[in-house]
Amino acid sequence: MSGTLYGVGLGPGDPELITLKAARLIEGATTIAYPTLAGGDSFARAIAAGLIANGTREIRMDVPMSTERQPAQDAYDTGAAEIAAVLDAGEDVVCLCEGDPFFYGSFMYLFARLSSRFDTQIIPGVTSVTACAARAAMPLAARNERLTILPGPLPEEELRLRIDGAESVVIMKVGRHLPKIRAVIDDLGLTDQAMYVERATLPEEVVLPLSQAPEKAPYFSIILLTKGADPWL
Amino acid sequence: MSGTLYGVGLGPGDPELITLKAARLIEGATTIAYPTLAGGDSFARAIAAGLIANGTREIRMDVPMSTERQPAQDAYDTGAAEIAAVLDAGEDVVCLCEGDPFFYGSFMYLFARLSSRFDTQIIPGVTSVTACAARAAMPLAARNERLTILPGPLPEEELRLRIDGAESVVIMKVGRHLPKIRAVIDDLGLTDQAMYVERATLPEEVVLPLSQAPEKAPYFSIILLTKGADPWL
Repeated sequence: MSGTLYGVGLGPGDPELITLKAARLIEGATTIAYPTLAGGDSFARAIAAGLIANGTREIRMDVPMSTERQPAQDAYDTGAAEIAAVLDAGEDVVCLCEGDPFFYGSFMYLFARLSSRFDTQIIPGVTSVTACAARAAMPLAARNERLTILPGPLPEEELRLRIDGAESVVIMKVGRHLPKIRAVIDDLGLTDQAMYVERATLPEEVVLPLSQAPEKAPYFSIILLTKGADPWL
Repeated sequence: MSGTLYGVGLGPGDPELITLKAARLIEGATTIAYPTLAGGDSFARAIAAGLIANGTREIRMDVPMSTERQPAQDAYDTGAAEIAAVLDAGEDVVCLCEGDPFFYGSFMYLFARLSSRFDTQIIPGVTSVTACAARAAMPLAARNERLTILPGPLPEEELRLRIDGAESVVIMKVGRHLPKIRAVIDDLGLTDQAMYVERATLPEEVVLPLSQAPEKAPYFSIILLTKGADPWL
């Protein structure tokens, strides 16, 4: 009988924002798997580090730094094959995933490759969206308000169109797209309603009004934008 | 010196989806506060029940069942005054909140009334959005995909407009709006891509293709909609 594949969300970075369920699964795991970027450290593993028992088998997937898809696909192909071998031997595998597995999460690449063959359980996690809102003291949506989540790499014109028609907006993966996004928000006259958050809930966290954001943003940065008065009072 | 006001997200319902941080705060609380609907049980308190120590002071806010705002405002005014008295006496108050405090969460009403006067900490939680996606085995967004979150009570024409222009869509608070939402999704030819989830992660959870959804939906039900092929393989 095959093992179960677990895709476990770890939350935004503070190890205390791991759920009780994720903590239990990681502590009891005989095999964990996680991606690393360009052979460097794994952010997912770092979040979970305090819960990983000595002697746990670790499957690393070294995802190369590239805007092309094929190198990453190859890394996940290799990782999926390693994971499948463990599952076929009847053991469970706990895949570590920053944030939530199904919300811009690396686990989706493994889910696509393995979920049709193996029993798969997804453990949702706290997303960076609500973590950033918490840290910026900025409520996201109440009552009948809409919330739009946009990736920062979208083209400038599409960002403009989507922000202009929206109520609350969260822009993910800001990174090197910060100047473009800032220009769009400035043009729309919304800069005063925007907050910038990088590495939310980590010791090196930065929370600033967008007008005071740095020139360079890391990949794990977000812009929050709420329009209009508080309608929820 | 005043106490600290904590707004603590409890996740979608499964007590194991509480974060380690929320669990620690609830276990150590001398005073907790939570809303109840129309004098009934509190869903938030039920999620956290296993963590609440004997002798913990409990502040209940009985929010009446009404579509008008004033009765709820009055209940939160009264609750905020009770909470403020405890904070003024130098004790912390831990406010329990289903899901995430800043994502359609009841805590926003207390935040609006108290955060300018007291040190306030928000502990983000797992939202029903990613919990439903996990239970429906339905990835929400990858790479440069957009995600739109819409409340079910929105007017039919607005729902149609917002769904038609969107990629992945999550419709919250479906409840009695199910027939209207279903008609819109049918008209747009998207029923085959939609899943219905009620009471995600609870023992009485229901997960069905929208085409098989019941006629009547509870307030805590969600429709997930993803369009097009998986672009993330």
